[in-house]
Amino acid sequence: MTAEEPIFDIAHLAHVELLTPRLEESARFFVDVMGMTESGRRGDSVYLRGWDDYEHHSLKLTASEKPGLGHYAFRASSPQALQRRVEAVERSGLGLGWIDREAGHGPAYCFTDPDGHKIEIYYETVWYQPPEGMRPALKNQASRYPDRGIGLRRIDHINLLAADVRANRVFMQQTLGGRMTEQIIFDDGSEKGSWLTFTNKTYDVAISEDWTGSRGRLHHITYAVDSREEILRAADICLEHRVFMETGPSKHAIQQTFFLYVYEPGGNRFEIANAGARLMLAPDWKPIIWSEAERKKGQAWGLPTIASFHTHGTPPVE
Amino acid sequence: MTAEEPIFDIAHLAHVELLTPRLEESARFFVDVMGMTESGRRGDSVYLRGWDDYEHHSLKLTASEKPGLGHYAFRASSPQALQRRVEAVERSGLGLGWIDREAGHGPAYCFTDPDGHKIEIYYETVWYQPPEGMRPALKNQASRYPDRGIGLRRIDHINLLAADVRANRVFMQQTLGGRMTEQIIFDDGSEKGSWLTFTNKTYDVAISEDWTGSRGRLHHITYAVDSREEILRAADICLEHRVFMETGPSKHAIQQTFFLYVYEPGGNRFEIANAGARLMLAPDWKPIIWSEAERKKGQAWGLPTIASFHTHGTPPVE
Amino acid sequence: MTAEEPIFDIAHLAHVELLTPRLEESARFFVDVMGMTESGRRGDSVYLRGWDDYEHHSLKLTASEKPGLGHYAFRASSPQALQRRVEAVERSGLGLGWIDREAGHGPAYCFTDPDGHKIEIYYETVWYQPPEGMRPALKNQASRYPDRGIGLRRIDHINLLAADVRANRVFMQQTLGGRMTEQIIFDDGSEKGSWLTFTNKTYDVAISEDWTGSRGRLHHITYAVDSREEILRAADICLEHRVFMETGPSKHAIQQTFFLYVYEPGGNRFEIANAGARLMLAPDWKPIIWSEAERKKGQAWGLPTIASFHTHGTPPVE
Amino acid sequence: MTAEEPIFDIAHLAHVELLTPRLEESARFFVDVMGMTESGRRGDSVYLRGWDDYEHHSLKLTASEKPGLGHYAFRASSPQALQRRVEAVERSGLGLGWIDREAGHGPAYCFTDPDGHKIEIYYETVWYQPPEGMRPALKNQASRYPDRGIGLRRIDHINLLAADVRANRVFMQQTLGGRMTEQIIFDDGSEKGSWLTFTNKTYDVAISEDWTGSRGRLHHITYAVDSREEILRAADICLEHRVFMETGPSKHAIQQTFFLYVYEPGGNRFEIANAGARLMLAPDWKPIIWSEAERKKGQAWGLPTIASFHTHGTPPVE
Repeated sequence: MTAEEPIFDIAHLAHVELLTPRLEESARFFVDVMGMTESGRRGDSVYLRGWDDYEHHSLKLTASEKPGLGHYAFRASSPQALQRRVEAVERSGLGLGWIDREAGHGPAYCFTDPDGHKIEIYYETVWYQPPEGMRPALKNQASRYPDRGIGLRRIDHINLLAADVRANRVFMQQTLGGRMTEQIIFDDGSEKGSWLTFTNKTYDVAISEDWTGSRGRLHHITYAVDSREEILRAADICLEHRVFMETGPSKHAIQQTFFLYVYEPGGNRFEIANAGARLMLAPDWKPIIWSEAERKKGQAWGLPTIASFHTHGTPPVE
Repeated sequence: MTAEEPIFDIAHLAHVELLTPRLEESARFFVDVMGMTESGRRGDSVYLRGWDDYEHHSLKLTASEKPGLGHYAFRASSPQALQRRVEAVERSGLGLGWIDREAGHGPAYCFTDPDGHKIEIYYETVWYQPPEGMRPALKNQASRYPDRGIGLRRIDHINLLAADVRANRVFMQQTLGGRMTEQIIFDDGSEKGSWLTFTNKTYDVAISEDWTGSRGRLHHITYAVDSREEILRAADICLEHRVFMETGPSKHAIQQTFFLYVYEPGGNRFEIANAGARLMLAPDWKPIIWSEAERKKGQAWGLPTIASFHTHGTPPVE
Repeated sequence: MTAEEPIFDIAHLAHVELLTPRLEESARFFVDVMGMTESGRRGDSVYLRGWDDYEHHSLKLTASEKPGLGHYAFRASSPQALQRRVEAVERSGLGLGWIDREAGHGPAYCFTDPDGHKIEIYYETVWYQPPEGMRPALKNQASRYPDRGIGLRRIDHINLLAADVRANRVFMQQTLGGRMTEQIIFDDGSEKGSWLTFTNKTYDVAISEDWTGSRGRLHHITYAVDSREEILRAADICLEHRVFMETGPSKHAIQQTFFLYVYEPGGNRFEIANAGARLMLAPDWKPIIWSEAERKKGQAWGLPTIASFHTHGTPPVE
Repeated sequence: MTAEEPIFDIAHLAHVELLTPRLEESARFFVDVMGMTESGRRGDSVYLRGWDDYEHHSLKLTASEKPGLGHYAFRASSPQALQRRVEAVERSGLGLGWIDREAGHGPAYCFTDPDGHKIEIYYETVWYQPPEGMRPALKNQASRYPDRGIGLRRIDHINLLAADVRANRVFMQQTLGGRMTEQIIFDDGSEKGSWLTFTNKTYDVAISEDWTGSRGRLHHITYAVDSREEILRAADICLEHRVFMETGPSKHAIQQTFFLYVYEPGGNRFEIANAGARLMLAPDWKPIIWSEAERKKGQAWGLPTIASFHTHGTPPVE
């Protein structure tokens, strides 16, 4: 008997909606410091993208009383793939229905994961069309490489907080076809974190335990740059802009990502990352399991895991 | 009516067999200069791998009168995917049949592309088990990061020469599910080069026109490292080892890869490359078409394309 | 008998005045693309500096019918050192006298080298005082690290053209205390290029033979950045701005500098360079002599020396 | 009245003698992990150098019951400069006399600083002559760039511990001509650390307060590599070799050096550093003074200063 085939219906993480109590400051941060491009505004929302994000936007900022996650979205691999995933979600009982008035893409099916994070999935999209001053010198990139700020290339992943990591992780696997690549299992058997991929990246979604037991919260979102050097430069730019740097630049043991974590003006944690040439190519990868003792060793080069990593999430818990 | 769905049956480029008239020198080059690991020998062949190649080998060197390509191999995404691709190849009339005695993996189906390059496809594989001195400090990598030589991370792609680029490219698309990402079309409509991917990398196989009209030849194979800085360091190491550097380090316009091309002692061209954080995530990417005039501009930063790029292939044409 | 002691009277290359027929375009280029700061204007001149140049300016752009060198300047190590060098210059018969109305520094003594390049030397200077928005987060740097453009750190060296390299080089040694670190001597004994230092940098002034036999011309001036990665990024930024890149990024054999050469809008050649941790610490360094055959090998990694390196200088010869 | 002229009699920090209770392990560490070259042995000492150190050795390891500093040495700028400094030291009353039997250089004058660290100064030296396999491809570097280990380029600086920082610092200024570039002054006026340079590097000797009040101890010694990327790679190599990494890679606020601190097998702290293109070119630099509050902010990007920085020195205090 052969095993079930992997599911390739999710093409990639498409965008994230961040809620911010300081919309204009957040927008300025992502444009001036992070070097993103504003590709539109609608109501209380500002749409942004990295210089090589091919869609209309990969980040939506929406004014809100508190910071946190509005929703995040996947693009499906094909119309048929979208249909299959919608059916699977509907079977799970977590479906919310279709919306079709969102900027930047076609009809999207809305649902939640068991922890309550709102997710959308769609296929039809709007490719970014760079205006005159934004056209790249090389036509195989989405827009001009910016000469200002840090210059985020593209959206990379989202890290959710969840009261029940395992339940959320199994949902992502069974309903969406996520493949687990690494996880943290403590001595008591509890699952403290799981990393899932839908692509050849080693993770697109991470789920960390919410120590407060709250639901639907966000740990951070992450954009990719081309090199570790760009992250060191990012730290220098954040330093000049007095951006709060929570930890890094350094290298994670889990997934080995080179990272820098900062807080954007709205209070959400934001990561700039580089994975080098690391990819998940094996179709039958056995998940790496990190023990409690191994986690206590901190990051790859011995940097202690910062305490606020376990306490700060958005929205804040009161 | 919806379009046909993309095929995800090929997991990745698995390995390449290079023929070399100087087997021991070639093996020493890949171990001492490139920092690869020898994982076995059998008959006239030496098996090698990069430090994060997860399989038994990604490079097989075989003694031969002339340099060139022995064969190259894909790993399928699943047993079912393998079966589907075998059936498609058999329908094409280019199938050669199964072999099951190769080191490092299970039964493989052999065939050729229209130009005559020998290809294998398999699913069952042998995961590399690092011996004591090769175990990594971080258990999410295949083996220890080497403290000698350049330190190639993993196999990246193969660039074939073909008398008829278009015929070979269409075969890769229709039979194996390759997705074309970029191509060169000259003013007379002739297809001079095509780049195909089976993954989220922007290319796994490239096909360039063989100006001699010969068939079955090789342009180069490529391994990935984590940064552009490692490629600059590679050039310094090649300089000290008096390795012939054909061109680079510099940046390609096509695919934007940062590159260094050298010749290994057997005479085959070999590339060390870094793609930054560039990935092919869009499932409906429209291939970029480079014109004759655009190609004349040379590489991304103006470096002229070196003349030997159009004349040197292996085996040499007499 | 002991040898003569080295002279340490020149503290460093202080600034260069470039002549440009397109003053505003040149100024925009150095501010927007190169990331320099404009620190003042006076008459037909614009004063500029890199983010860690501690003086009022390191570059002065002056409107002129043709591009070329206005003058360049050294800062002396002390008032006494200045006096000693002025006396030495006066003995040489090439002195022109004192000026004291120049922006950014105190009284300067003017003279020419035998080839006719105009030079100034002074001690009293004006330290750059960053205004509010330019203050650095770390108080041990001259001003804020820029978040726009390439971000040149500081002036590095000047490369003169001279009809008689040897005469000019000997003048720099005997009159100013330059120490020769490398040179090119052709088979016929002619001196084609010489590199001199006044500091622990391996060169502050280079002199190349002017093949046209003209006098007083400029080959290029150079600014330093912190890493080779910044030079690769500079190439990407120049690409987007359609700046003409003459050659590089690559590594010189002579002095081993990592380089990128571009032309600024006025027509002057401009280099962005990084020397890594290379310094000239030995007080009794024996100059490295490169032969005609060695020069034919091109740059360090085999890149051929570009032909325009031997033909393009400013002002152009008609 | 003009100020006194700066003194340029010290050419550079030449070498350090480290004491180690594990001579062979320390030697293996510096050769295999750090990529240094062993250039000789004599008695209980092993002589080592970085690939671009031009002298016979820059590091001498000597077997000893406890780790710590044997001595360190300066090379003078000229025979006359040596004579002047010897006279100044003799006037200070801390002179010990001449020795002439040391490997790798000519007659050296021995003395101590007020805290009791042993120092030598000499002019005549032995230039390293690379044997066949060590000859560089480019003749303007001291020996071949290594293809093993981290590849330290050259010695950079020494950081002493001293019971009385101020007394030791003033001695270095008045007797040797050191120029202070930065210092830490606490609210009570006490001098907690001082950085002195004899070159265009921003420091060659640092002096930190020894909180135990002990005398003659060592905080660390430092070697330079060409880029921050090489330090990240060094961390990966140290990780694989299970070398204890105390802190870093990160960036200092003071002097802005990018750093990685490890302990060598004998117990001495060892730093790998990169300064980018930062140099001390101004002859009249006003020392930067860091306050108690500023020091509490930690390193440049917010990394807390590690506690062991204030407790670990060699030899250990019992």
